Amino acid sequence: MLSDTIAAISTAVGEAGIAVIRVSGPDSIAEVDNIFRSKTKLTEAESHTVHYGHIVDPELGERVEEVLVTVMRAPRSFTTEDVVEISTHGGVISVKRVMDLLLQQDIRLAEPGEFTKRAFLNGRIDLSQAEAVIDLIRSKSDRAFSVALKQVEGQLSDQIQKLRHTLVETLAHIEVNIDYPEHDVESLTAEFIKEKSTEVMQGITKLLKTAEQGKILREGITTAIVGRPNVGKSSLLNALAHTNRAIVTDIPGTTRDVIEEFVTINNIPLKLLDTAGIRETMDVVERIGVERSKHAVTEADLILLVLNGSEPLHEDELELMEQIRGRQSIVIMNKMDLPQQLDKDVLLRYYPEDLIVPMSVKTQEGVDALESAISQLFFSGSIETADLTYVSNVRHIALLKKAYKSLQDAYDAAEQLIPIDMIQIDVRLAWEQLGEIIGDTASESLLDQIFSQFCLGK
Amino acid sequence: MLSDTIAAISTAVGEAGIAVIRVSGPDSIAEVDNIFRSKTKLTEAESHTVHYGHIVDPELGERVEEVLVTVMRAPRSFTTEDVVEISTHGGVISVKRVMDLLLQQDIRLAEPGEFTKRAFLNGRIDLSQAEAVIDLIRSKSDRAFSVALKQVEGQLSDQIQKLRHTLVETLAHIEVNIDYPEHDVESLTAEFIKEKSTEVMQGITKLLKTAEQGKILREGITTAIVGRPNVGKSSLLNALAHTNRAIVTDIPGTTRDVIEEFVTINNIPLKLLDTAGIRETMDVVERIGVERSKHAVTEADLILLVLNGSEPLHEDELELMEQIRGRQSIVIMNKMDLPQQLDKDVLLRYYPEDLIVPMSVKTQEGVDALESAISQLFFSGSIETADLTYVSNVRHIALLKKAYKSLQDAYDAAEQLIPIDMIQIDVRLAWEQLGEIIGDTASESLLDQIFSQFCLGK
Repeated sequence: MLSDTIAAISTAVGEAGIAVIRVSGPDSIAEVDNIFRSKTKLTEAESHTVHYGHIVDPELGERVEEVLVTVMRAPRSFTTEDVVEISTHGGVISVKRVMDLLLQQDIRLAEPGEFTKRAFLNGRIDLSQAEAVIDLIRSKSDRAFSVALKQVEGQLSDQIQKLRHTLVETLAHIEVNIDYPEHDVESLTAEFIKEKSTEVMQGITKLLKTAEQGKILREGITTAIVGRPNVGKSSLLNALAHTNRAIVTDIPGTTRDVIEEFVTINNIPLKLLDTAGIRETMDVVERIGVERSKHAVTEADLILLVLNGSEPLHEDELELMEQIRGRQSIVIMNKMDLPQQLDKDVLLRYYPEDLIVPMSVKTQEGVDALESAISQLFFSGSIETADLTYVSNVRHIALLKKAYKSLQDAYDAAEQLIPIDMIQIDVRLAWEQLGEIIGDTASESLLDQIFSQFCLGK
Repeated sequence: MLSDTIAAISTAVGEAGIAVIRVSGPDSIAEVDNIFRSKTKLTEAESHTVHYGHIVDPELGERVEEVLVTVMRAPRSFTTEDVVEISTHGGVISVKRVMDLLLQQDIRLAEPGEFTKRAFLNGRIDLSQAEAVIDLIRSKSDRAFSVALKQVEGQLSDQIQKLRHTLVETLAHIEVNIDYPEHDVESLTAEFIKEKSTEVMQGITKLLKTAEQGKILREGITTAIVGRPNVGKSSLLNALAHTNRAIVTDIPGTTRDVIEEFVTINNIPLKLLDTAGIRETMDVVERIGVERSKHAVTEADLILLVLNGSEPLHEDELELMEQIRGRQSIVIMNKMDLPQQLDKDVLLRYYPEDLIVPMSVKTQEGVDALESAISQLFFSGSIETADLTYVSNVRHIALLKKAYKSLQDAYDAAEQLIPIDMIQIDVRLAWEQLGEIIGDTASESLLDQIFSQFCLGK
């Protein structure tokens, strides 16, 4: 399977300055050379060099496109195979013309994720690193990107490998005991298994603890902004979106649609409910008011209740607070720049002090306080953890939980002095389950499933 | 102005395997090197080499992204300046992180088209070549792309230069005559001017003749498909779109929205009326039938009237033909695979034989005949012209017309034996007007206007 040569467009398709087509496989250089005219023959080009020339239809002799071609020879490439990257003019027709000619050579269209899959199958990266490549591309916030980059660089892999190493030592210890069974040693071995299982279980627990935060960083906190009409919900949204706009309009050519449901309060990504036309929806909320708000509340992970601090509390708002009770929510006392009429003591019946945030959306005062309140709720106050290892992949979480269960079984069995060779099965299972995270023991169908989630050209 | 260094994202923005940021200017290599960590220093790298490494925040020392960096040293680059291309992971956050750091160096965000503008200002390409770069990117059909590519390569420029060369010779001849005025020579010179003006006017006429076709190739023929309910309009659209789908779905990741208003019948691009959801609209047309069709007809360059050949002509259809009379239109006798009931003689009262196309949308018979009928109407039968020089740019057309007018004035003046130094003004004007096409005599504000039409990063 890896003996064939594949090609795909690796950049997003649209009107742009340039587009890049990636070709990988043992014949990539020779096959591209068939349709490339330049001063240098690609087959004679050194690795990591760039060549100006034309893609030419070999039958008609016609110039099809003006390109820059980069040659990267195995194993110094993304896939560890010979890789050719063809940089064409941007636009749909240009890439189509070149792709058409490539596919007339002994090259086939790459499947989604197939370049990354090859990097994995050829041993350059493990499975968790490969999976982090998707996270990099899809990341919606700076922090999510940093987390994914660490994972691409193998930080999660290292931690998993450490845990597996402990399990391999344990298994080796068990092997010795099975070969030389004596009662004394057996009971000592049971102790050893309990100790090592506990150690690895603690490691797993630590990783699982990061899972909820990892999911948040990757997917954002599903957030509803609720409140009575004219308390400033739309203005709050605009104020938050302003921070986000820095992400979007700094990047020319980005349509706001792509990530407009996301706003970030510094490093915390909020996914606002109602993706299609938040602004319009917010207007509707402004109009329809409380009824609509009640509905939004049921879907949210986080509820931002906006009150007008310059007015006394309204009975609708009391009703909303009753409804929200027990949910992750923060009260924003807006309009703090005006004389305050709102009785905070009533709020304190429903909210602890640190979840009541006086703010002025107008003057931007209080945004930091809002951030720390959110951080309080979702990151136990410390979003700035040092190592940036967050398990966020659902598959990884499931496997960590399975491995934990297997080790718990091993521990319990050791406790009951069940024969060591029975316990061995559970320890081995945990080792395999952890191995599946990094792809050491992953099945073909699992790989297909994982890489099919990739975009084409990666 | 050209002494500063500029950067922009040059690929389309979206979830994709890779994105490319381009940096150009005298300090591009040194500035990027400030935030790049690799085995090789970029400042010591040879031209046209690629380097794996990391973009690093120089203050925090943190790795911001894993990248491939290409160095192209002046003058062997797109802009003829030192150029650095940074290939990052695709996705919004990745490019934002790298761009943010670049703009913290002594680098500013490029304006739209500024890379191409520099290529022009530095003399690598002329203005008509620069303008063709936009056409390349925006082209909607294979043929439009080929035409633009020829223009990028200077084919139009060459023809304009030839005409200008003739005018320079003429001006030189006039100069001699002004310096040594004798009556004999003056009348000979008038003849010479008439001869040369005619020659250049003929060249201009030839170029202008390609203009209408060039516009069609670039923008597509605005087309309405009309007819009674259930004659097969939607099926025809689907059949035509099928050819087009080859353009679109061959390119993975393309959303159909981008060019879905275009279908091509082999090389002829049709821009179907009603860009938003043609298919839905066509269904509406199917339902509402003739009334709706009548409206669509008024906007179209080309009307495809679909009749059901297996049924007699309906009076609504006669009414439609009356309405269409005098417009560029083609009658499609659909369902030729069924027994025919339609009286072709009635059609011949409205249409010449070769614009009546028997077809079976179902079996795809007749699509070629439809193509040649369209080609007949819009390309006088021969779309396959050899040289592919089509003037399609509105600015070029206007300047060609102006130059023609100036030469006509020169001719008329020579005819009336008006003093040569008066005629000289008109000839010089024509020379300047042609020069403006290739940017030889273009003003700063014109340049701004032209390059502001570019996408960013080009």
